[in-house]
Amino acid sequence: MNTAAPILLTPGPLTTSARTRQAMLEDWGSWDDRFNALTASVCAQLLAIVQGEGSHHCVPLQGSGTFAVEAAVGTLVPRAGKVLVLINGAYGKRLAKICEVLGRDFSTFETAEDEPTTAADVDRLLHADKAITHVGLIHCETSTGILNPLADIAQVVKQHGKRLIVDAMSSFGALPIDARAVPFDALIAASGKCLEGVPGMGFVLANKQALAAAQGNCHSLALDLFDQHSYMARTGQWRFTPPTHVVAALHEALLQYQEEGGLPARHKRYADNCQALLEGMADLGLRSFLSAVIQAPIIVTFHAPTDPRYQFKDFYERVKAKGFILYPGKLTQVDTFRVGCIGHVDAAGMHAAVKAIGQVLQEMCRRELARESL
Amino acid sequence: MNTAAPILLTPGPLTTSARTRQAMLEDWGSWDDRFNALTASVCAQLLAIVQGEGSHHCVPLQGSGTFAVEAAVGTLVPRAGKVLVLINGAYGKRLAKICEVLGRDFSTFETAEDEPTTAADVDRLLHADKAITHVGLIHCETSTGILNPLADIAQVVKQHGKRLIVDAMSSFGALPIDARAVPFDALIAASGKCLEGVPGMGFVLANKQALAAAQGNCHSLALDLFDQHSYMARTGQWRFTPPTHVVAALHEALLQYQEEGGLPARHKRYADNCQALLEGMADLGLRSFLSAVIQAPIIVTFHAPTDPRYQFKDFYERVKAKGFILYPGKLTQVDTFRVGCIGHVDAAGMHAAVKAIGQVLQEMCRRELARESL
Ligand SMILES: Cc1ncc(COP(=O)(O)O)c(C=O)c1O
Ligand SMILES: Cc1ncc(COP(=O)(O)O)c(C=O)c1O
Repeated sequence: MNTAAPILLTPGPLTTSARTRQAMLEDWGSWDDRFNALTASVCAQLLAIVQGEGSHHCVPLQGSGTFAVEAAVGTLVPRAGKVLVLINGAYGKRLAKICEVLGRDFSTFETAEDEPTTAADVDRLLHADKAITHVGLIHCETSTGILNPLADIAQVVKQHGKRLIVDAMSSFGALPIDARAVPFDALIAASGKCLEGVPGMGFVLANKQALAAAQGNCHSLALDLFDQHSYMARTGQWRFTPPTHVVAALHEALLQYQEEGGLPARHKRYADNCQALLEGMADLGLRSFLSAVIQAPIIVTFHAPTDPRYQFKDFYERVKAKGFILYPGKLTQVDTFRVGCIGHVDAAGMHAAVKAIGQVLQEMCRRELARESL
Repeated sequence: MNTAAPILLTPGPLTTSARTRQAMLEDWGSWDDRFNALTASVCAQLLAIVQGEGSHHCVPLQGSGTFAVEAAVGTLVPRAGKVLVLINGAYGKRLAKICEVLGRDFSTFETAEDEPTTAADVDRLLHADKAITHVGLIHCETSTGILNPLADIAQVVKQHGKRLIVDAMSSFGALPIDARAVPFDALIAASGKCLEGVPGMGFVLANKQALAAAQGNCHSLALDLFDQHSYMARTGQWRFTPPTHVVAALHEALLQYQEEGGLPARHKRYADNCQALLEGMADLGLRSFLSAVIQAPIIVTFHAPTDPRYQFKDFYERVKAKGFILYPGKLTQVDTFRVGCIGHVDAAGMHAAVKAIGQVLQEMCRRELARESL
């Protein structure tokens, strides 16, 4: 194990286990049966996480998570469709941008970055605009760490006879989603988030009927999930060269996910991490941006220290020197930084991170004091 | 080194060095300076391979090679442009398909799979249709291994004042291309081919002026090379989560590429591999599909043995059991199979592969003879 490397407290790429990384020490033929079996096993395990075997197909896609989000919109929203995009952060805005670039009609509903969208909002919006065919929701909006009420919103969307597209990039595998109870046309995530694989592929869990009806919708060859799925269903292979080592790492990460105890265990570890982080930072006098009830145990946004000597870049480098990589804030109005709770790390790791942060904040002051006293 | 694993005689994914794979044993923060330096170094080395530092930008892109080809067409061909696609195999056809899906006007010129497109063909075609703005060429058409005359065609395209888009997926790094002498708007390749990295990212070497003029052309957010480049130029970071481990592996593979002696050495090793393969297979009575003058030292197509007992699947499994992974043919008219000459393998490895193939062909007959005599 590479113990010298810093722990990534970032929302993906994140710290993976040595075992997951070691799965990349082999080369795989992308045409070979052994690799096809790996792909099939990954897809089956991803579907099982949301109990989606009966209702959905898993369509893996090369590229980052955004590629999979764009592929889902491009493939599943017909060219004459209209998307209602629910926004309370940067990834909601990106979803709207995707609709714009693709030329899909869309409208947006934006709440403050610390305010979840509610099912009542969605009900009202769907009553008001009958042209809407699809609703786009970010489950955990990683730009703050806020959790949106997926299950409630999914019910309302279904009552209106509309379709739901969920960006579950930073929640999949850690927060419970049951496809038998939560209707969605597409749920999107990626290899390098709560499953603790390495980055390099995304996947879309696509409703079988919706996918079957999607031929010819897509604006792109590479991002066409209908083609990707039909080719794979026919041949067992990816349509274009797969990121073989990334797939092998995800497969190994999923085995460890099961061994750990599946979703409940992963959820508990991340919740414990989040709790340890919130408590420790509070002791240092650092305030979290979101209130506890809307905070997902994925990533926490903290207000920057008010001390005028605090600068994120300096803070970041000093915490990194102590073995932890933090993440900058993504808010335009408020000065913040973020700390992830996900990856191959436990509460002891979070305590150590908090300790390092505390030392650095002290150091930053002491150094300045020393300089002032010269 | 993982000596138990079979050697991949496939045109990517291919066999990489243990050192390249070991570069994936570390996790990288995608926001971190150390990772940004890795990306910058990779891009600089890729440009240097074609002496393109003065004229071109390197734009890396998440996903497989096809994603980068589609990104180049979508970004660099204006919506009112027209592409002449030169076809003599499956990848030329795919390029035409990309134009079709993207809604770019295009025409095709197709020669037989064993017949290179000539500069005279292109000259005639450009005279005949003034609406053409871009020419799309596959440098080495991997579906057979045929080499198209890039330098000559590039001159003709330039004389007509048109722009060239080159799919150099399977030739980049092994066959000489000098950007100072061969004018192109885009040259596309990927990590997991002749550079001997692992698959998971492509890149486009894009002419600086052409890229600067390309804002707003692209049909896709994820595949927009203008956006990808401007974000990276501004921040040093990838626009969306990079495949960090794949980038680290490519960086390590490029260091080994330089240590080996750069392009001339890589070219010579592959040419030696190809020679060893052709001679050894000829001794076994196996005929190559292409004549020597148009054969690139990348992948060789062989006619299937005429023995009625030969079946590719059985042949493949038996050769694999002896440690070598072959590739199926990609021709519709003729029964063939393919053997790659690229990857972390030398002429001794090719001799061993030929020996294994010879033994398997004997076995396949003997088994049949034994069965017949029951
Ligand atoms: C909620 C959400 N959506 C989309 C993305 C984009 O994924 P990527 O950066 O892999 O393209 C992220 C990345 O963290 C995310 O958290
Ligand atoms: C010439 C050529 N173009 C395009 C591609 C497509 O690349 P990918 O399979 O990585 O999408 C390949 C793959 O081998 C190729 O050889």
